[in-house]
Amino acid sequence: MSGRSKRMSASKRVFYFSNAHSEGNRGMRELLGSKGANLAEMASIGLPVPPGFTITTTTCADFYANNEQLPVGLHDEILRYIRRLERETGKRFGSEQNPLLLSVRSGAAVSMPGMMDTILNLGLSDLAVVGLASVSGNRRFALDAYRRLINMFGNVVMGVAHKHFEAEFNRIKRRFKVSLDSELDADGLEELIQAYQQVYRKNTGEDFPQDPFDQLEKAIIAVFRSWNIPRAVAYRRIHEIFGLQGTAVNVQTMVFGNMGDDSGTGVAFTRDPTIGVNEFYGEFLINAQGEDVVSGIRTPQPVVNMKNWKPEIYAQLLKAKQTLERHYQEMQDIEFTIERDKLYILQTRTGKRTGTAAVKIAVDMVRERLINRKTALLRVPPNDLNQLLLPSFAHHTKREVLATGLPASPGAASGYPVFTADEAVERAEAGVKVILVRKETSPEDIQGMNVAQGILTSTGGTTSHAAVVARGWGKCCVTGAGKLHIDERRKTITIQGRRITGKDMISIDGTSGEVMLGDIPKQPPSFSSEFLTLMEWADKARKLVIRTNADTPADAQVARDFGARGIGLCRTEHMFFGENRILAMREMILSENEDSRRKALKKLLPYQRRDFEGIFKAMQGLPVTIRLIDPPLHEFLPQDTHSQEVIARGMGFTTAHVKRRVEQLHEVNPMLGHRGCRLTVTFPEILEMQVTAIVEAAINCRRKGIRALPEIMIPLVGVDLELVLLREQVVATIEQVRQKKKYRGKLDIPIGTMIEVPRAALTADRIARHADFFSFGTNDLTQMTFGYSRDDIGTFLPEYMAKGIIEKNPFTTLDNAGVGQLVVMAVQKGKGHKPHLKCGICGEHGGDPESIQFFAAAGLDYVSCSPFRVPVARLAAAQAALRNSQSK
Amino acid sequence: MSGRSKRMSASKRVFYFSNAHSEGNRGMRELLGSKGANLAEMASIGLPVPPGFTITTTTCADFYANNEQLPVGLHDEILRYIRRLERETGKRFGSEQNPLLLSVRSGAAVSMPGMMDTILNLGLSDLAVVGLASVSGNRRFALDAYRRLINMFGNVVMGVAHKHFEAEFNRIKRRFKVSLDSELDADGLEELIQAYQQVYRKNTGEDFPQDPFDQLEKAIIAVFRSWNIPRAVAYRRIHEIFGLQGTAVNVQTMVFGNMGDDSGTGVAFTRDPTIGVNEFYGEFLINAQGEDVVSGIRTPQPVVNMKNWKPEIYAQLLKAKQTLERHYQEMQDIEFTIERDKLYILQTRTGKRTGTAAVKIAVDMVRERLINRKTALLRVPPNDLNQLLLPSFAHHTKREVLATGLPASPGAASGYPVFTADEAVERAEAGVKVILVRKETSPEDIQGMNVAQGILTSTGGTTSHAAVVARGWGKCCVTGAGKLHIDERRKTITIQGRRITGKDMISIDGTSGEVMLGDIPKQPPSFSSEFLTLMEWADKARKLVIRTNADTPADAQVARDFGARGIGLCRTEHMFFGENRILAMREMILSENEDSRRKALKKLLPYQRRDFEGIFKAMQGLPVTIRLIDPPLHEFLPQDTHSQEVIARGMGFTTAHVKRRVEQLHEVNPMLGHRGCRLTVTFPEILEMQVTAIVEAAINCRRKGIRALPEIMIPLVGVDLELVLLREQVVATIEQVRQKKKYRGKLDIPIGTMIEVPRAALTADRIARHADFFSFGTNDLTQMTFGYSRDDIGTFLPEYMAKGIIEKNPFTTLDNAGVGQLVVMAVQKGKGHKPHLKCGICGEHGGDPESIQFFAAAGLDYVSCSPFRVPVARLAAAQAALRNSQSK
Repeated sequence: MSGRSKRMSASKRVFYFSNAHSEGNRGMRELLGSKGANLAEMASIGLPVPPGFTITTTTCADFYANNEQLPVGLHDEILRYIRRLERETGKRFGSEQNPLLLSVRSGAAVSMPGMMDTILNLGLSDLAVVGLASVSGNRRFALDAYRRLINMFGNVVMGVAHKHFEAEFNRIKRRFKVSLDSELDADGLEELIQAYQQVYRKNTGEDFPQDPFDQLEKAIIAVFRSWNIPRAVAYRRIHEIFGLQGTAVNVQTMVFGNMGDDSGTGVAFTRDPTIGVNEFYGEFLINAQGEDVVSGIRTPQPVVNMKNWKPEIYAQLLKAKQTLERHYQEMQDIEFTIERDKLYILQTRTGKRTGTAAVKIAVDMVRERLINRKTALLRVPPNDLNQLLLPSFAHHTKREVLATGLPASPGAASGYPVFTADEAVERAEAGVKVILVRKETSPEDIQGMNVAQGILTSTGGTTSHAAVVARGWGKCCVTGAGKLHIDERRKTITIQGRRITGKDMISIDGTSGEVMLGDIPKQPPSFSSEFLTLMEWADKARKLVIRTNADTPADAQVARDFGARGIGLCRTEHMFFGENRILAMREMILSENEDSRRKALKKLLPYQRRDFEGIFKAMQGLPVTIRLIDPPLHEFLPQDTHSQEVIARGMGFTTAHVKRRVEQLHEVNPMLGHRGCRLTVTFPEILEMQVTAIVEAAINCRRKGIRALPEIMIPLVGVDLELVLLREQVVATIEQVRQKKKYRGKLDIPIGTMIEVPRAALTADRIARHADFFSFGTNDLTQMTFGYSRDDIGTFLPEYMAKGIIEKNPFTTLDNAGVGQLVVMAVQKGKGHKPHLKCGICGEHGGDPESIQFFAAAGLDYVSCSPFRVPVARLAAAQAALRNSQSK
Repeated sequence: MSGRSKRMSASKRVFYFSNAHSEGNRGMRELLGSKGANLAEMASIGLPVPPGFTITTTTCADFYANNEQLPVGLHDEILRYIRRLERETGKRFGSEQNPLLLSVRSGAAVSMPGMMDTILNLGLSDLAVVGLASVSGNRRFALDAYRRLINMFGNVVMGVAHKHFEAEFNRIKRRFKVSLDSELDADGLEELIQAYQQVYRKNTGEDFPQDPFDQLEKAIIAVFRSWNIPRAVAYRRIHEIFGLQGTAVNVQTMVFGNMGDDSGTGVAFTRDPTIGVNEFYGEFLINAQGEDVVSGIRTPQPVVNMKNWKPEIYAQLLKAKQTLERHYQEMQDIEFTIERDKLYILQTRTGKRTGTAAVKIAVDMVRERLINRKTALLRVPPNDLNQLLLPSFAHHTKREVLATGLPASPGAASGYPVFTADEAVERAEAGVKVILVRKETSPEDIQGMNVAQGILTSTGGTTSHAAVVARGWGKCCVTGAGKLHIDERRKTITIQGRRITGKDMISIDGTSGEVMLGDIPKQPPSFSSEFLTLMEWADKARKLVIRTNADTPADAQVARDFGARGIGLCRTEHMFFGENRILAMREMILSENEDSRRKALKKLLPYQRRDFEGIFKAMQGLPVTIRLIDPPLHEFLPQDTHSQEVIARGMGFTTAHVKRRVEQLHEVNPMLGHRGCRLTVTFPEILEMQVTAIVEAAINCRRKGIRALPEIMIPLVGVDLELVLLREQVVATIEQVRQKKKYRGKLDIPIGTMIEVPRAALTADRIARHADFFSFGTNDLTQMTFGYSRDDIGTFLPEYMAKGIIEKNPFTTLDNAGVGQLVVMAVQKGKGHKPHLKCGICGEHGGDPESIQFFAAAGLDYVSCSPFRVPVARLAAAQAALRNSQSK
């Protein structure tokens, strides 16, 4: 036993709580567990909490240090506290007149699933049940409480399988010819108790303990043991919860809401948890137990109805609500019981709420001077803002869920299934709402995706092509709905024998991943004044600049409206998929020499220039970071023979030529192949065309008085000399265009690089010499650092997460230990070499609050995320700044 | 101008060298350049070097600091040295009696292509040429020397295009009706000189300088300027040559071997450079210039014939040979000239030699007490040992080269082309020597590759599947011979319209990459006593342990014979490709539940166990690191419909089932997909089977008295919890087998991990907690750190290397700056946490000398390489140890 635990074992092990006197408070979570600390706190601020006591977590540690024996002296200490409870309640533990009944619960400093939950009615015995019957005047009530204890104690403390008890219950219900548990009368229950005691004896080798202290001791030991069951140990290991002493044990007087019509029970929120208005919100049942409210057998009444039933108790409850909110400075979710006209608060905890409510409550509480702005900002989970920005299915509408996929891009969408991009365009142009349904999508589907209400795929994860594109547009998307058999040729979805065709409307919920039949009603988003106020506060608090990933003027405008301060990633390849563009692009790829490539590129130039002009206009006065071509060329060519024939005919090539070129471009691992700056190193004429388009667009805009501020970004750099070479070419092209356009003004176009290959991060000091900015491409960086292809992780990542090997999908939340280490290293090496090097991030993680916290601490200057994530990022950045200044 | 260069400009700028007096020595490379230092050295040890002087590299720096002007005072200093040369030679610069002629050459401290090379005959003018004619008694000789000067000076110093001179020469040859340059007589040459002077005037705007000092000054400036031409600057940048002052200028008296029959010229090696015996080896020509020996117009005589022609000069030459070898302690490659019975040594440098010669010379020189063992070990390039271990094509055989691919695995092989693995097996069994010719190979081709003499592919690099497997076997292989059009269906190779079929024998040279028609004669390898001696010395010097990568008992035996001290990588997946095994393997993969998988695995168990028994026996007493299954499962399934049908029939599946499974297993980026430990996490039964086979084999061996020392290695770990989970399973399985086999002895099987995912290196401290050893898989680590798929780099890596972006193929030589940084980080984090953690490397780099040097410095304990690289690695490890102890 260590010195510390020896000292602890000599000190106080039990802490009392009641309105009369509480020995603990909410600052003592480590010692009393969070539940124990909270009970003590509530009691000490005068809330009517049933009295009880908490055995400390250090006692649990001593239990283990002491070879799983309760420490000497604990028994006496508990005895003293039981006597004190008896004095305060006027009841006696084990009494056959007015027995004291207890609940026993575990409770560590951190909430932890897997540990022992609850034993109720402890203290009942063959004798005490008689006392309970007499004092309650209700024999059936007393017997029912007793059989519950034997069942719960046998199961939870002694490990007797629940089915053994259940079998007896069923047998006796049959004998008494009743079907519901509640229909069994007192005689039946008496017989059941005897049967339960036999089950207990048969499975444990001993009698059900009649000594209430024996019951209590066994229960305490069971709670302590549950601390070290494999599931709890695994949970702590996976969540890296270290340094806790053990679990506390909470022993509390039972109160009953089912003692008659002067009793009742209920649950309530101190404010409306769906829309946030400051109104009491909840339900109650007369003459009922807590579980009856939940079970749905009886229909509870709204809590405001208590005004009519028991006005004075309702007034007490309203007062408790105010006390709790003032004390906890937070909206509370409370459980209460009325036992014979006396109100008890059994539990209070922070109330869960929708995003809408979270924003309103936080802002309202600042106005009510309950909390300050900083607290308000830290209290709203940034991801909850999504709910405010997107339509959603109306609450309480009936849903027929066909399958559940991955929630790839939030929102709600309904439409008729279409199975090809062409069909999508065709039907959408005819005014039909469609959902594009594909096994998976590819860049060829872009136009179909664009016109669809939503996108549904049977394969792919939350970072698949469909998901990324959809999120970028704020379009609803469900991916990886593997149970759907999608037959793209026959245009059907089959799910468990059921066939859905283009005539059956479906709805998809991008927030839950549900796929439903029919057209489910939706509710539109609304920007409340509270939302706008919170965003204003966030902008004052944050240090990170928020930019957006946008490839079109429309996206840029949306993002700007959401508060983006520039574009951090403008992908140029999506621009090649328009009607005429893709033809020119394919011509370029199919060319066999530089001359023909240049001819084809010349056709693309005006399109690109026009795109850039539009984007510069939408973002005028703000920087626009344009990434040069990134994907491998084969993504622009069709893979099926028919389309290849069409192309060949259209361009005057032989089909064999097209086929050969497609074959040549095939790559075993395209992710690690000929793409990014590797393309512009080998085909400098593509870079030249793109830079020409950018600079011409910028000059044209400026001549019209539009402040265009382009930045040119080279993707996939891994070797400093790539950047040296390409930078030279970019600079030369800028100069050429300037001379051709006879432009005399300053252009000042920063030239930077993406850091998305591990080697770039490792050699960031060398690369920084030639870069005006770094932008972390954390998607690719994650793929290469882990060696995970995000297109292929579906086969193992779910199992990895289920087994706790990986806690969070690293494509959603940045892996701090590995990928984050590279980010920090690159920032330090880069800024170490060039202090004013601008560093940002433009991967998917730019819109993830937890990752934003990391990026802020790592010293980045900006994050760039999809337009619909901009408000989330603004709030997350504010929280990061507030937290980082706290920790300093 | 910096303080330093000011000081320098005040100091000595010119250093004299002659047998009478040399001011420099070979320690002064920085100041005199390597050529200048060497000339001074030779002169001072009494070798008959034509006298001259060197202008220092700091003068070059001053030239640039001084706005490209020669420093004040240099002219006078040069004048003094010219006078000294005149005194020593009895000639006069520019004289019309006996003119002093000079050569001018550049020479930096590091040899550098691109800089100005040589000007000969400087000092000739319209006057001096008369003097030369009279003193040589040969007017034609003098005029020829003069026209050469004008041409060379005009071209090299003044930048006049060579074609202008050539046009005049052709015109005059036509006029004089001769075809060879040497046929033009003195009158023709006189006319030519006038024409040349006109060309000079027309292109430079001035007359060809008649003042020899003017010539000399212009030549010196041209040398200095050549230091900063773009090609030289780029070369220094790419090779990271920094901190040099500039180039020196070497000015040396001309001597002529074409002054008559008492003159001559030759080149010779001080020992035989092909087999290394200590015999003078070279050729000479009477009355000839250096270029005549090289040009091949006249046939030179063996140098020993000089004994008959000029015995006293031959004796002088032999003495010079001895002096040089004693002085340089190295075999020399010398150029000499005899001018009118006087011998001059014009150049000496280290002689290039074959691997065989390198070994013999190094060991002989130790025996002759010329050098010590350390020098001998450092002097043999480890890669040269390959030549000693493999057959090669006999020298001087005629080769008809069809195409040149990449030298993927050294050696020489001839055979009839076969185009499928089956055909290879069939014809090889019929006793025919075959070369397997494929676009690329896959694991399905293994048996065909095994029986072939050599392997030839049209795609893939030096680390493609074909290359890696071939090197592992020491089998000759040429990959990426892209000019060959291989039609596997029609069984033909087409190259520039020529068709080669299975009836035409071909030969491939794995050392040069050449593909040739016909059966070229080969010579076998031989282990000389010198080779064995050198290996013995290497083993005493090295600190790194050398292991091998071997998957079969035969490979293990070969490697052991080559000196391997254990197996560092035993891949288990090749073992699944045997006749019956692949069926069971496929059955396992096609199974849809664990039970059927287990049934199939049970069939594989005895095969694996037998394999391991064989390997343990071959390696008894030495550790054998076995890597659990690594490749994605789809590699074991056939991709074509026909084979899928065959399998379906054979196993009682429907073809649709097989097709569906193949489709399911398809991955976009297999390199980053479901492989390595990701397989055993999701299919623990595979791990169980493999570990069972390993442990049963070990116990069986030990019971027969064979010391089996297996080590179990988990591939592709990126997250510490993968290793935690799998280690638990391995430990549990070992224990199970031990109990089943009732084995009481110690097993002590270390369990380690590969570090081949960047994240593993970044989090090596966490991973080390659960690993007994680390083995770096630098192939995959390179792929992921660079983001290069080694199957796909063919499209850009050659261009990257041509453009100097990447200097060396990172799959051949470890990239120290990036991948190496991860290796060092992982070793430090791993050993920091666990000082006795064994660290090794088992990627292709384990056999590369330069990489081995890095691994030794990084603190690794062992390297593992393919069997045929073991001697190379032993020597490289010795060199690394010697160098690292030097640098400490």
